[in-house]
Amino acid sequence: MDERLKKQLDFILEVDKSKFVVRQTYLTDGIRKEDDAEHSWHIALMAILLAEYSNEPVDVLRVVSMLLVHDLIEIDAGDTYAYDKNANATKRERELKAADRIFNILPEDQAKKLRGLWDEFEEYQTPEAKFAHVMDNLAPVMLSDAVGGKSWKEHGVFENQVYGRNKRTPEGSETLYQVIDEVFRKNIQLGNIKGDNK
Amino acid sequence: MDERLKKQLDFILEVDKSKFVVRQTYLTDGIRKEDDAEHSWHIALMAILLAEYSNEPVDVLRVVSMLLVHDLIEIDAGDTYAYDKNANATKRERELKAADRIFNILPEDQAKKLRGLWDEFEEYQTPEAKFAHVMDNLAPVMLSDAVGGKSWKEHGVFENQVYGRNKRTPEGSETLYQVIDEVFRKNIQLGNIKGDNK
Repeated sequence: MDERLKKQLDFILEVDKSKFVVRQTYLTDGIRKEDDAEHSWHIALMAILLAEYSNEPVDVLRVVSMLLVHDLIEIDAGDTYAYDKNANATKRERELKAADRIFNILPEDQAKKLRGLWDEFEEYQTPEAKFAHVMDNLAPVMLSDAVGGKSWKEHGVFENQVYGRNKRTPEGSETLYQVIDEVFRKNIQLGNIKGDNK
Repeated sequence: MDERLKKQLDFILEVDKSKFVVRQTYLTDGIRKEDDAEHSWHIALMAILLAEYSNEPVDVLRVVSMLLVHDLIEIDAGDTYAYDKNANATKRERELKAADRIFNILPEDQAKKLRGLWDEFEEYQTPEAKFAHVMDNLAPVMLSDAVGGKSWKEHGVFENQVYGRNKRTPEGSETLYQVIDEVFRKNIQLGNIKGDNK
């Protein structure tokens, strides 16, 4: 087999490990937590359906590609829970090291392409990156709401944390930020997310 | 919230159930079987990386979109193992009923769009559908090979069944069919797939 194809197939087998990286978000059964592959599938499909709500026109294939690869670095770096302060302090360093290993399994041009998509996502500047972040934030908010805020309650998450996490969401989609804001207000009222004065 | 957006979000929550539809393919740990969401993520990413091997040029966004939705009908219809003859006899009827319910949760234009993608995949006529089928067939072959053919052995699968399943794979990609053929030959030799004279 040709060397290029061999590298591509090696990469494809390697990234199977995304299916073992467990996130903190419960599925709609409220029992099992989702993994990175499931999450990435869900938000890629969401991007196709919700692209009309992006503030700026986006290249949908670029958004979808970004979402399909955005969590690959967690194969080495692990999932960093959005509201874990200590883990977030070392996140960037762990993820950069992971990116250097994982993307470079591919032939050089594709390593560069996928690394470029991940960098673009992390840099949060283009309309595609901003909209991709909306998808990445909206999905766990919807799922957590669907199971009575189980994950927020378990982690004792505060209002300022969930809003802090979504500070830049309106840059990607004003409309979908309204959905998120509505879910937060409801769950603060229900006590599933702690009010900042509690 | 506007009625259109509500339907879109209802659909997005409903399809979370894809994460509970278990397939017969083992992950690379050889222990857990993958689910439809994980499988769909994997083959969508594969399509981005392997599109260069399609016999005919393809619209990659169309292939990826098709792959992200191709198994949604299994939320109601269940996964039908490729080599289960009885289940395959009722598959089409079960899946059509599922498609009518699931896609119609969406606003009409998007229900039509996603149903169209699924129909295109099933009809197996366009370059995009043919290449999408290559991805759908290549992934479980690579995974089964990676774990010593565990799933083939458990089900006592025969040579004529795996080749039958891949009869049309060369229409999508001659190059990737060679990969599949090589894996089959090796696993027949190893006894992981039963030779037809056994």
